[in-house]
Amino acid sequence: MLTLYYAPGACSLVPHIALEEAGADYRRHRVNYAVGENNQPPFRTISPLGRVPVLLTDRGALTENPAILSYIAQSHPEAGLAPLDDPFAFARVQSFNLFISANIHVAFRQIVFPDTYADGEEAAKALRDKVPELADRYFAVIEQGLADGRLYVHGDRFTLSDAYLSVYANYLRKGDRGDVSRLPNILAHRARIRARPAVQRILEVEGLADEWRD
Amino acid sequence: MLTLYYAPGACSLVPHIALEEAGADYRRHRVNYAVGENNQPPFRTISPLGRVPVLLTDRGALTENPAILSYIAQSHPEAGLAPLDDPFAFARVQSFNLFISANIHVAFRQIVFPDTYADGEEAAKALRDKVPELADRYFAVIEQGLADGRLYVHGDRFTLSDAYLSVYANYLRKGDRGDVSRLPNILAHRARIRARPAVQRILEVEGLADEWRD
Repeated sequence: MLTLYYAPGACSLVPHIALEEAGADYRRHRVNYAVGENNQPPFRTISPLGRVPVLLTDRGALTENPAILSYIAQSHPEAGLAPLDDPFAFARVQSFNLFISANIHVAFRQIVFPDTYADGEEAAKALRDKVPELADRYFAVIEQGLADGRLYVHGDRFTLSDAYLSVYANYLRKGDRGDVSRLPNILAHRARIRARPAVQRILEVEGLADEWRD
Repeated sequence: MLTLYYAPGACSLVPHIALEEAGADYRRHRVNYAVGENNQPPFRTISPLGRVPVLLTDRGALTENPAILSYIAQSHPEAGLAPLDDPFAFARVQSFNLFISANIHVAFRQIVFPDTYADGEEAAKALRDKVPELADRYFAVIEQGLADGRLYVHGDRFTLSDAYLSVYANYLRKGDRGDVSRLPNILAHRARIRARPAVQRILEVEGLADEWRD
């Protein structure tokens, strides 16, 4: 049995969608940040940095979003969430996921948790002020990749990368981190992913249906 | 044929070692940062952010270090650089690699390229000043993982994660980013990896043999 440790609206939403898309047999555990559960021993034992997502398996815990996503795809091959039999195509999926993880996720974290990177209010302001420029640069690369009219990030099939992109495109809509209006391909992609039944179910579970509405 | 785009001493050293350990048939292209090659069209076409490493294959380019590493392992299964037939064990390798990529690599980048995260000299100083604290926290997690006397990150076999860790442990020795002396397991691991013939060859190619000496 798999258990996803998540917080509503956090980036654990991506594996939450992936598990649902995979038709996985899983439980969910909501980590209660309000009472500091993320910084207490039971959770810190499986998440050394006190962060979601964690996927607990019968063999132990997995952390780091792209690794969790690849595991969900590999352990549910029938769901077709990644091109598992083609090392190059699989690497392209991973490369895209890491582009978000190592660049876009870090940029957005600068807004929510600037003290991950530097101390002090002036540094926090400088970290936040930089985000729109970074978001513009990073999302422009993705927008260009969608410009050939493809329906999904890697072509004509839904993969892990589509779940990943849709969640970060939705963060971008919050307004404090860049201008989403110049990214029509990404907006159309987001609407396409949001319409999927599995995504709808998870948005309901996490209480995000309003936030995801246009 | 594979071509690795690298810069001496950059984190492209990790896939450079992995290609050599895999016995891969590959070429190398040194990206000349001194003349701005990293920011000019031919290279920017394969690396949208102008960064190394890039692994160019007959089917296109791959970016993002952990994705490149997994591709090298999957396309050279006989080399045994990752437990390819065991999704959970493979995910643990990826999770470790991402722990470095998303945390330690970002922290060290704060020293070398602080303007990736914020503008201005004061912000740059705040970003640099935070790094020893971050390095302590992140490397402590890894040090504890090695405390059971294992020879390699994931047990008794060399994997991609060992190449990754050794390169970042060597960065840590530069002295401006944390205290390596409290990490005896990581230091012993680094010496073990450095002694490997494939690693020795690549350190010679990149001109790093002196920098890696004790």
